[in-house]
Amino acid sequence: MIPTELIRKKREGEELQPDELKFLVNGYVNDDIPDYQMAAFLMAVYFQGMSEAEMNEFTRLMLHSGTVIDLSFIPGVKVDKHSTGGVGDKVSIILAPLVAACGVPVPMISGRGLGHTGGTLDKLESIPGFRTDLDIDRYKKIIEKIGLVMIGQTKSIAPADKKLYALRDVTATVECIPLIAGSIMSKKLAEGIDALVLDVKTGSGAFMREKDRAVELAQALIGIGEAFGKRTIGFITDMNQPLGNAVGNWIEVEECIRCLKGESVPDLMEVTYRLAGAMLYLGEKAGSIEEGEKTARKKIGSGAAYGKFIELVREQGGDISFIENPSKYEKADVQEDVYLETEGYVRTIDNYNIGLAGLVSGAGRKKIVDSVDFTAGLIVHKKIGDSVNSREPVATVYGKDREGVQDAVRRVRKAYRLSNNEVDAPRCIYGMATKDGYTDYENGT
Amino acid sequence: MIPTELIRKKREGEELQPDELKFLVNGYVNDDIPDYQMAAFLMAVYFQGMSEAEMNEFTRLMLHSGTVIDLSFIPGVKVDKHSTGGVGDKVSIILAPLVAACGVPVPMISGRGLGHTGGTLDKLESIPGFRTDLDIDRYKKIIEKIGLVMIGQTKSIAPADKKLYALRDVTATVECIPLIAGSIMSKKLAEGIDALVLDVKTGSGAFMREKDRAVELAQALIGIGEAFGKRTIGFITDMNQPLGNAVGNWIEVEECIRCLKGESVPDLMEVTYRLAGAMLYLGEKAGSIEEGEKTARKKIGSGAAYGKFIELVREQGGDISFIENPSKYEKADVQEDVYLETEGYVRTIDNYNIGLAGLVSGAGRKKIVDSVDFTAGLIVHKKIGDSVNSREPVATVYGKDREGVQDAVRRVRKAYRLSNNEVDAPRCIYGMATKDGYTDYENGT
Repeated sequence: MIPTELIRKKREGEELQPDELKFLVNGYVNDDIPDYQMAAFLMAVYFQGMSEAEMNEFTRLMLHSGTVIDLSFIPGVKVDKHSTGGVGDKVSIILAPLVAACGVPVPMISGRGLGHTGGTLDKLESIPGFRTDLDIDRYKKIIEKIGLVMIGQTKSIAPADKKLYALRDVTATVECIPLIAGSIMSKKLAEGIDALVLDVKTGSGAFMREKDRAVELAQALIGIGEAFGKRTIGFITDMNQPLGNAVGNWIEVEECIRCLKGESVPDLMEVTYRLAGAMLYLGEKAGSIEEGEKTARKKIGSGAAYGKFIELVREQGGDISFIENPSKYEKADVQEDVYLETEGYVRTIDNYNIGLAGLVSGAGRKKIVDSVDFTAGLIVHKKIGDSVNSREPVATVYGKDREGVQDAVRRVRKAYRLSNNEVDAPRCIYGMATKDGYTDYENGT
Repeated sequence: MIPTELIRKKREGEELQPDELKFLVNGYVNDDIPDYQMAAFLMAVYFQGMSEAEMNEFTRLMLHSGTVIDLSFIPGVKVDKHSTGGVGDKVSIILAPLVAACGVPVPMISGRGLGHTGGTLDKLESIPGFRTDLDIDRYKKIIEKIGLVMIGQTKSIAPADKKLYALRDVTATVECIPLIAGSIMSKKLAEGIDALVLDVKTGSGAFMREKDRAVELAQALIGIGEAFGKRTIGFITDMNQPLGNAVGNWIEVEECIRCLKGESVPDLMEVTYRLAGAMLYLGEKAGSIEEGEKTARKKIGSGAAYGKFIELVREQGGDISFIENPSKYEKADVQEDVYLETEGYVRTIDNYNIGLAGLVSGAGRKKIVDSVDFTAGLIVHKKIGDSVNSREPVATVYGKDREGVQDAVRRVRKAYRLSNNEVDAPRCIYGMATKDGYTDYENGT
């Protein structure tokens, strides 16, 4: 096969056959296909898309470029959740122990912060001693023992995706649904799961700003999941403001600990319970999502979810004394409240800039080699619909470095838009997608 | 500037500013921009196109990446012709000496065969001793002395185009009008011309199969030419069958010699005279294209054009005894007539396959390193509209290698489609494009 002919075929909008995709993806992994040909191919895919069959095959090739973990020795339906990423999205840290506490095994491989968004791995690693760089053997042992494990992507998982993602990043071919879907699913399908719940975020702090695109991505992900025999449900949720109040690493873990202990952070817990309900439903521990939600609420109330989290931290090397007594954690050197000069109701928050504020405060990476400041970040006190005056801070920024904190303060201040009239809080969950279609909660079922 | 941001900008269909294009093109030449980023950019251009301003700037950057020859020391309006390439397109070899014989200096830098098409350089080099690899100093001296010079692209001409062309070739980004136009014009503008006549071919043997696309390319080329202060006229001409009868190298030169001596090959000379008329008009040796055509016919009749060709061959090291007595040229080892089994009138000829037949006979290159067999090729005896029976050959194939010749014979046979009814010969020249628009000769002026 001639690479140029395959690029041309895709350029002309034709469907590539499985052996043609195999030639390209495997050739790229083996360095037979050079970066420049793959770059041209990816840009052609950006414009021409992929058919369902192509997406499935593309995912399969990336999946089988590495280890596919087998967890069939563990009884029960193993269920994971994947979020497309957002600002203050700490759901996994509450959700995974909660669902595991309900008896559904949760094998979770997470990523680091990307762009303006934080990553579950960085957050977990802010717990002193907590290790996420465990090998697959240890991964299997932990989930077998406590029904829950949370690690980072190992080198052996979907190496084709790793190489392709690095190329996409430098060739402006990231924002492409078939490529995004293939990348996500090749990693998720390697975990050893039986079913998957997706949290596809939309809004100013999400990668998919428009809801239609988020639904499109959800459908693509679900299509792949189902094609691989994994029952898959997706929710479209709001990312027009941070989820919960904390944006950072340790300060997000702290918020999670409070939630696990039963404190209510309404939007955060609404999303968490819905995802938990779906995971319990897919994990066959509930007859419906609603029933699953009820079960989940009880396991928070009983302390079982918190107990499972303690187990997880202990099992992965973390110092549980910090979970039991968060106040002993190191404090940020610099702390500054953010005030607005006007009064009114919060109409919108530019959540992309809130994400960037977190990043520049020290909680994220500007370059891949940067280290993360676990104490940095911000607490958002005022969310959409809240009333604001010039005497109450809308947020508080934390960090090590005064300049970074002040940059963050400026960004937060610029992110708020006020209204003179009362504003309704936005919906947290827009709708649910399954392989059969999308149901928007506002427009009824 | 960040390369990825510029790729993204083009991907989104936005116009790049001159400094942004400069960053990309100069960065690519200097190896600061890697192949894979340029490949993604080129594919984005394939889908999003370029504005007129972008095309001009892109051409300017490629032009000034190398030497721009100054011929202002030579009196008169220097005019060249460029053809987009075809099968049996030997026009330059007749046209250049003809126009020079009429007093218009013709500085011509030509290319080699590309894909299924032949190249003027290979044809000229089939003349024993003829050198096309002259340096710019020698180029200037020859045109000054005899008003005519025909060489190949030197390393110093538009090196950015050379590097970009090689990348386009392996990334399926060749067939893109702004990139084609920039590539052609960056080389033509480097020659030292004052005006340019374009022969944009369309049909089964052309790179632009559809006439609309050929007109689009002509307009793009004219737009760039005029933006650089060069008066430019373009003709859309037929490439649904070979031009003239010979397809190869020396056999094409032989056909040119006959034409220069006054023999009529109707379609070939119709195109040649029209282009000559336009060159004389732009070169200010005729008040109109029609008047220029008349002058040109006289210079063939008088032998002046033939005399100028002899001067050219002598000046560039060729052995004129082969021009004066073509029969002394080495003969092809293998020669085979092509017969069809049916009778009728030639309805269509798949000219792409005729071009490939020439290539496999040995007249072209399958790989860049292949050498060309100067005696190989074919003579087409039957053209569209001609009557065919099973006793008269439609073509004769020549070559060194029996297998190649037989492959060519098969391709020629497959290329012919007959009709039971009489068929009109196609038009040779479809229309004329100027900066103000396109006039199709069939639809009137």
